[in-house]
Amino acid sequence: MNGAKSLVKTLLAAGVDTCFANPGTSEMHFVAALDQVPGMKCVLGLQENVVTGMADGYFRIARKPACTLLHCGPGLANGMGNLHNARRARSGIVNIVGDQATYHRPFDAPLTADTTGMARTVSQWVRTSMRSEDLGRDAAEAIAAAQVFPGQIATLILPADTSWNEGGVVGAAASVPTPPAIDGNAIENAARTLRQHGKDTLILLAGHAVLGEAQKLVWRVARATGAAVMADYVTAHVSRGRGRLQLERVPYVMEAAIKALERFRHIILVNAKGPVGFFGYPGMPSEQYAPDAQLHVLSRPDQDPVQALAGLAKALNAPEAEIPDPGPRPGIATGAPTPEGLAQTLAALMPDHAIVSDESVSFGRGFYKFTHAAPPNDWLHLAGGAIGDGLPVATGAAIGAGKQRRVISLQADGSAMYSLQSLWTQAREQLPCTTIILNNSKYNILIGEYKNVGATPGATAMSMLDLGNPGISWVGLANAMGVEGARATTLEQCADLMKSSFGRAGPFLIELMI
Amino acid sequence: MNGAKSLVKTLLAAGVDTCFANPGTSEMHFVAALDQVPGMKCVLGLQENVVTGMADGYFRIARKPACTLLHCGPGLANGMGNLHNARRARSGIVNIVGDQATYHRPFDAPLTADTTGMARTVSQWVRTSMRSEDLGRDAAEAIAAAQVFPGQIATLILPADTSWNEGGVVGAAASVPTPPAIDGNAIENAARTLRQHGKDTLILLAGHAVLGEAQKLVWRVARATGAAVMADYVTAHVSRGRGRLQLERVPYVMEAAIKALERFRHIILVNAKGPVGFFGYPGMPSEQYAPDAQLHVLSRPDQDPVQALAGLAKALNAPEAEIPDPGPRPGIATGAPTPEGLAQTLAALMPDHAIVSDESVSFGRGFYKFTHAAPPNDWLHLAGGAIGDGLPVATGAAIGAGKQRRVISLQADGSAMYSLQSLWTQAREQLPCTTIILNNSKYNILIGEYKNVGATPGATAMSMLDLGNPGISWVGLANAMGVEGARATTLEQCADLMKSSFGRAGPFLIELMI
Repeated sequence: MNGAKSLVKTLLAAGVDTCFANPGTSEMHFVAALDQVPGMKCVLGLQENVVTGMADGYFRIARKPACTLLHCGPGLANGMGNLHNARRARSGIVNIVGDQATYHRPFDAPLTADTTGMARTVSQWVRTSMRSEDLGRDAAEAIAAAQVFPGQIATLILPADTSWNEGGVVGAAASVPTPPAIDGNAIENAARTLRQHGKDTLILLAGHAVLGEAQKLVWRVARATGAAVMADYVTAHVSRGRGRLQLERVPYVMEAAIKALERFRHIILVNAKGPVGFFGYPGMPSEQYAPDAQLHVLSRPDQDPVQALAGLAKALNAPEAEIPDPGPRPGIATGAPTPEGLAQTLAALMPDHAIVSDESVSFGRGFYKFTHAAPPNDWLHLAGGAIGDGLPVATGAAIGAGKQRRVISLQADGSAMYSLQSLWTQAREQLPCTTIILNNSKYNILIGEYKNVGATPGATAMSMLDLGNPGISWVGLANAMGVEGARATTLEQCADLMKSSFGRAGPFLIELMI
Repeated sequence: MNGAKSLVKTLLAAGVDTCFANPGTSEMHFVAALDQVPGMKCVLGLQENVVTGMADGYFRIARKPACTLLHCGPGLANGMGNLHNARRARSGIVNIVGDQATYHRPFDAPLTADTTGMARTVSQWVRTSMRSEDLGRDAAEAIAAAQVFPGQIATLILPADTSWNEGGVVGAAASVPTPPAIDGNAIENAARTLRQHGKDTLILLAGHAVLGEAQKLVWRVARATGAAVMADYVTAHVSRGRGRLQLERVPYVMEAAIKALERFRHIILVNAKGPVGFFGYPGMPSEQYAPDAQLHVLSRPDQDPVQALAGLAKALNAPEAEIPDPGPRPGIATGAPTPEGLAQTLAALMPDHAIVSDESVSFGRGFYKFTHAAPPNDWLHLAGGAIGDGLPVATGAAIGAGKQRRVISLQADGSAMYSLQSLWTQAREQLPCTTIILNNSKYNILIGEYKNVGATPGATAMSMLDLGNPGISWVGLANAMGVEGARATTLEQCADLMKSSFGRAGPFLIELMI
């Protein structure tokens, strides 16, 4: 058995049965092994940032890692933006990066690069597997590393000769450490703080603490103590809709965040960090919380928030409490597209257990308020700030859900251009993806940021902030990659297109002119 | 004067007057400074690999560095594939990478990344400018580093507060070291080798040794000694067409390269390295030259090949020699597209002093033989092997030529998908770019490589090598980004479209079904 076969068998034995791929020459033995050892679902992306973003979306929904197949250092580099995002989302991914044969590396052939150096910038675990005999073991350890709660990026660099040489051994499953237990004192401290200062306390949720099970517990705690509950702005995955908490996120805009947090003297962090600005701004603090606020860590991002919140609810003797009803489901909005109207229309029409991939950037900041009464759904956000993960995440999420759930992308146009090749994979795999492109033909968030700097942008600045010259036809791009689409200029048109797209097996793109 | 203004003024004073940009929030003060200090031509790319690839193409033609503007570590990461290619092409680029404010970095906000670690993998020079007072000086040194012969990647990381704080000082020009002089013994050794073993000797050219001036000298040497002359396969820029040498490159395919080189007992390296395979293959050597061949370094890649070859010609008393005539210009070919027919048609129709950006991959390996009798042109290749630089390089080259020269892309479809956003910039800037997409709907090079591994690809392998399901409409993609285009299925149609496109001021795309 060559190394490549031992790798495929190790992956499959550990339940890693999906491979997002953009292979090259040095990976051909691995590709051949995938032909010879059945069981791996292979999904091609036409650019590596699509590949890595799909693996992120897959993990968020399937809750197990996929592997990626990337070609040498530069192929990894092309996918690093979305690996950065996946790292911030704490998704588990096993990257397999083919590379020069061990003995060929010193010759510095054109594609030779500092693959390890690149990998380290976006991975918690990096190893180059130097011998076929070790590849199965190394792969098993990579898979375990990817599964460390809540998830990690593990990058296994695979020299071509490690792949093609004989001597491969299937790796035995490596043990995945359980999350560190919650400290009793941390629970007691949080309980005491809530008893004494409940109304002045914010419980800030991130990571798995924003998912359904934790929400039920935190609601009991909040009801019993009068504390407020918010989600971190940087949250990869929120359980939303009817039956879930009507959470708001800490606002993106610095002034709004400071205002939202200023009244809290205590912040209990449940898998969250103390909230800070996305960027520093002249004359502004980095922290968004009040200077005299006390931060209390109930659970770290790598601990189990359900265990933490269950302990807290028990320590407080918090009674069972029903999550409040969000009121009636809204109807379709009409007229010119507004953020509120689009959110309302989405809430009116989205199918049960839909997945929303939200990279709506500036247009979407108010979507939450108008979608609490939607059916239960999983709402995915860009966690790392590197725009261009919305479409790949949606694509991978659809595969992670076995094509059984509708995936709706709320997608800013500027961001969509970074990884538009995702649409082709949606067509190839006939995924139930509805993409709503929010076409304003500009980097609107930057025009806002520019105004913070000085006056309105001049001609030179606008040459870098405007996407309207020439205008981009998103329907045209979609069609050219095998995805049907149509343009909407009113919310009624958008609603009609949503409805018909939700009945399709395959993908559809709505270009909403905003 | 804030740091940002001092940076813009330093760049302009040093002649860096073109900025390829994809900015973000942390760069807004720099963008504002570009509004306030006139003189910088700013060119927007909608994905960072387009931006860095444009800077590479610009340098190859303008022979001076442009700057790029990139947003934080992940924005740099998105552009690293083509920075890898630019490094291999030895192009000079000044990257300006905006980043978190110095005091904000410890808070680990979402976009915070190991920007320095990323930059080091693709740059010869990296510095983070920590104070506004130092920014002008740091920029001047970055510009000098980019100009070290033949060119280097210099990455200046710019924290937001270095940009916005007052205290900026325009940097005085930093000195650029002259290339190390050619060693007299190296010339004497090469001359002696050629006198004794001329007919068994290959003079291998790379870098600037493949440009026009060096070609004239090497031809004198070859004529006088009977030596053969070839270009390295990995060559970024070759002066080609009438009046230039009828050079061939060392073949890409390992067996062919070994066969082409086996007769040479001596190889004189003029800015080239000893030729090695692009990859290692089982049972094959890494080196492509004969095991008993002696390598002689006449000039290193960072030395002046004209000085080296002039010295060699003098040492050999090589008489003046006219570069041979390539024979009559070919006519247009007809019928189904073949590599030979396309090359011949291109040679028949291309305007004088055109620039060819060749990322034709498997289809284009025979183009040289049929284009020697074309008008004089500059032929650009992918030097780093990371596919996806053809369209950005073409776009940047058109700007580097002041829009005064026709740029023709010979572009494989699979590779084109990595950086298709280039077409939008071509439309926006109304560049004289003719893109010929070679549409075979597959990663054909990999199907060839797979066959080297085993049998024909099975279903799983083909799911990663086939681009035909769904087929991509390149005319559709171009139109959607503002570029007119048409499909050709015969060489006559292709010729008609070429002719009409060469008469346009703006871009055009020909989708050639091969």
